[in-house]
Amino acid sequence: MTDKPLCVPNGFRFGGVIAGIKKSGKPDISLIVGDQPLVAAGVYTTNQIVAAPVVWCRRNTPSQSVRAVIANSGNANACTGEQGDADTAEMCQRVADALGCDASDVLVMSTGVIGNLLPMEKVRSGIDDVLQKLDTGVDAFVSAAQAIMTTDKSRKTCSRQLQIADQTITITAMAKGAGMIAPNMATMLSVVTTDAKLTPEQATRLLKQAADGSYNRVSVDGHASTNDTLLLLASGQVGELLSGKDETTFANCLNELCVEIARELVADGEGATHWMKICVSGAQCDRDAELIARTVGASPLVKTAITGADPNWGRIVSAVGYAGPPIEPTKTCLTLCGVLIYENGRPLPYDAASLSKTMSQSPEVLVELIVGSGSGAGVHWASDLTTTYVTFNSEYTT
Amino acid sequence: MTDKPLCVPNGFRFGGVIAGIKKSGKPDISLIVGDQPLVAAGVYTTNQIVAAPVVWCRRNTPSQSVRAVIANSGNANACTGEQGDADTAEMCQRVADALGCDASDVLVMSTGVIGNLLPMEKVRSGIDDVLQKLDTGVDAFVSAAQAIMTTDKSRKTCSRQLQIADQTITITAMAKGAGMIAPNMATMLSVVTTDAKLTPEQATRLLKQAADGSYNRVSVDGHASTNDTLLLLASGQVGELLSGKDETTFANCLNELCVEIARELVADGEGATHWMKICVSGAQCDRDAELIARTVGASPLVKTAITGADPNWGRIVSAVGYAGPPIEPTKTCLTLCGVLIYENGRPLPYDAASLSKTMSQSPEVLVELIVGSGSGAGVHWASDLTTTYVTFNSEYTT
Repeated sequence: MTDKPLCVPNGFRFGGVIAGIKKSGKPDISLIVGDQPLVAAGVYTTNQIVAAPVVWCRRNTPSQSVRAVIANSGNANACTGEQGDADTAEMCQRVADALGCDASDVLVMSTGVIGNLLPMEKVRSGIDDVLQKLDTGVDAFVSAAQAIMTTDKSRKTCSRQLQIADQTITITAMAKGAGMIAPNMATMLSVVTTDAKLTPEQATRLLKQAADGSYNRVSVDGHASTNDTLLLLASGQVGELLSGKDETTFANCLNELCVEIARELVADGEGATHWMKICVSGAQCDRDAELIARTVGASPLVKTAITGADPNWGRIVSAVGYAGPPIEPTKTCLTLCGVLIYENGRPLPYDAASLSKTMSQSPEVLVELIVGSGSGAGVHWASDLTTTYVTFNSEYTT
Repeated sequence: MTDKPLCVPNGFRFGGVIAGIKKSGKPDISLIVGDQPLVAAGVYTTNQIVAAPVVWCRRNTPSQSVRAVIANSGNANACTGEQGDADTAEMCQRVADALGCDASDVLVMSTGVIGNLLPMEKVRSGIDDVLQKLDTGVDAFVSAAQAIMTTDKSRKTCSRQLQIADQTITITAMAKGAGMIAPNMATMLSVVTTDAKLTPEQATRLLKQAADGSYNRVSVDGHASTNDTLLLLASGQVGELLSGKDETTFANCLNELCVEIARELVADGEGATHWMKICVSGAQCDRDAELIARTVGASPLVKTAITGADPNWGRIVSAVGYAGPPIEPTKTCLTLCGVLIYENGRPLPYDAASLSKTMSQSPEVLVELIVGSGSGAGVHWASDLTTTYVTFNSEYTT
């Protein structure tokens, strides 16, 4: 996706700089500024242990007067007590002073290691620096997107354009996330920018709907983070307030973009070599189908079978059985990469070597399950589990 | 534990042989026979996809007329449809014919790969063979215990003796399990034999109670199996029917033995180098505390931190936050290997190098969490996650 051309919506400036928060010396302070007050909506982690920046953003969205989003990587400012809250407030105040707005009109995101206080001297000078580097255009957007990355191997950015009443509306998203990826909106940092005109209520509704079908359907390790934040910022510089059919067109485009970027999160899962697309049907309701798909995607035994291109399908079927929602064992069927191998509770003969070859050659392994005769259906994307994930995460801070 | 002397209860004979079901050529048919009809109780997997032998055992326990337990490793006889049910019945019938009892008085367990039909020719000759090898004593018991092992590195056996009314009662267990280990009684195969005298109802009650505090509190990979079975067999050859204080003494001894063997399952988790003992208190109820402890133990990020002897405690605290049960973030405290590092929502200074050294040197890493001011408490044991687990499970069948 990063090969496709990016388009940047009107009404924004972006910047990313190296403040020295990360030991690696990579960019770690990111800023997005609206030329005018922005409509902003947010969807946040469902973790009960929430980082200071999430508390701040929850308090200040939805809004129609947001001027900026300041973000740092390399430190999550989570589990940092009152000092963490004070540091978050100071970050926003510093940006607000430079822009001449209220601190509550500045949103904030942090990502990185949990439990350390922010190195505020570096953060302050990074903020002062990035304020000088703001620019419009793709290069500036990319700088901002790079500065929120942590363990990501690749930058996650994505653009869509749509025509509404002869006007070209742009929607462009940046995201970070490779570990601590779990469904139920606890997945990552992501900012979606658009020049469409939306009300705060409309932005909130459309963003929640898009998150439900995308960010909430992916998992890498099932560990829900303390910091995850998805923001939609609308500058309103193109066209009229969206309504009716135009709103639907915009919503569909936003949903597609979110699915695309959420899939990128999974594809870049720490150490991942493949991902699964797990489609469950025949459940008693959609919620049950999703929970079953999620449970299959979370099983370390299923994940390692995918890693090894091993059609060890009993692991998949047994995960369906312990997911929780009621299933009908004698109506349960599994199709793996298009090959039906378990039908109505009975194993079918299949060519294991050929199926293994198909699994190893495709980055996406399609897992299709029928679990009964109900009408519930759902889909989930999950990464595989490799020795690289384990090595990486057993050596992360020490 | 396997170094401690084993004692075998009166009234049983045991055997284990090589039938060729396992490619490795290791023992794979195990038989336990009662000299007289045995009282038998069982606790089984909660997976909705259940293997044929589990269906058979559920139907035939509790009982006071069980004569034998036949078991095979190397093949789970799960997801095998009607043929799987017929094969299970044939295994029991063959043993019953030799012993001159009803097939319903023979219990059966299978463990191994899911989804393949049993190689019945090998199973039949293995059964005929093991019937000739039955013996009393420790060596025979050990043979039977070895023949149920699959990916286990070490044999899991454990004995306790207790004095009741001047009589020595023996309780001796065998178990297998290293992968597909998840809490909620879906953990392994285990047979507890005793020469105490119990009613079927008493045996069922005491076994469930013991399982709740032991087998249901351990996890390796959180994948609940289709086959897991815990049986209690009582020959009744020593002493009178247990009641009152004597029953309590017996129950305590049974509980301790089950905790010890359950901990061994975790210690031998596939590829495991350490295990965690996670103690949660201050929850709103015991059930909540257990769920929190289990969630911490299931997080791949927590597991890999333990593998790396990395006191990356933010991963532990954030897992508490997404477990589900209500917690009080500002009253949350974490003590790792005896060192208080997070108190009432605030990080404390600590010597990370020293703590890392302690973590690396102890096989058991003690994780103590206070999550609020409630009275709920619970404990869970979980293995760490190593590259060996991943390598092993991505190369298991292909």
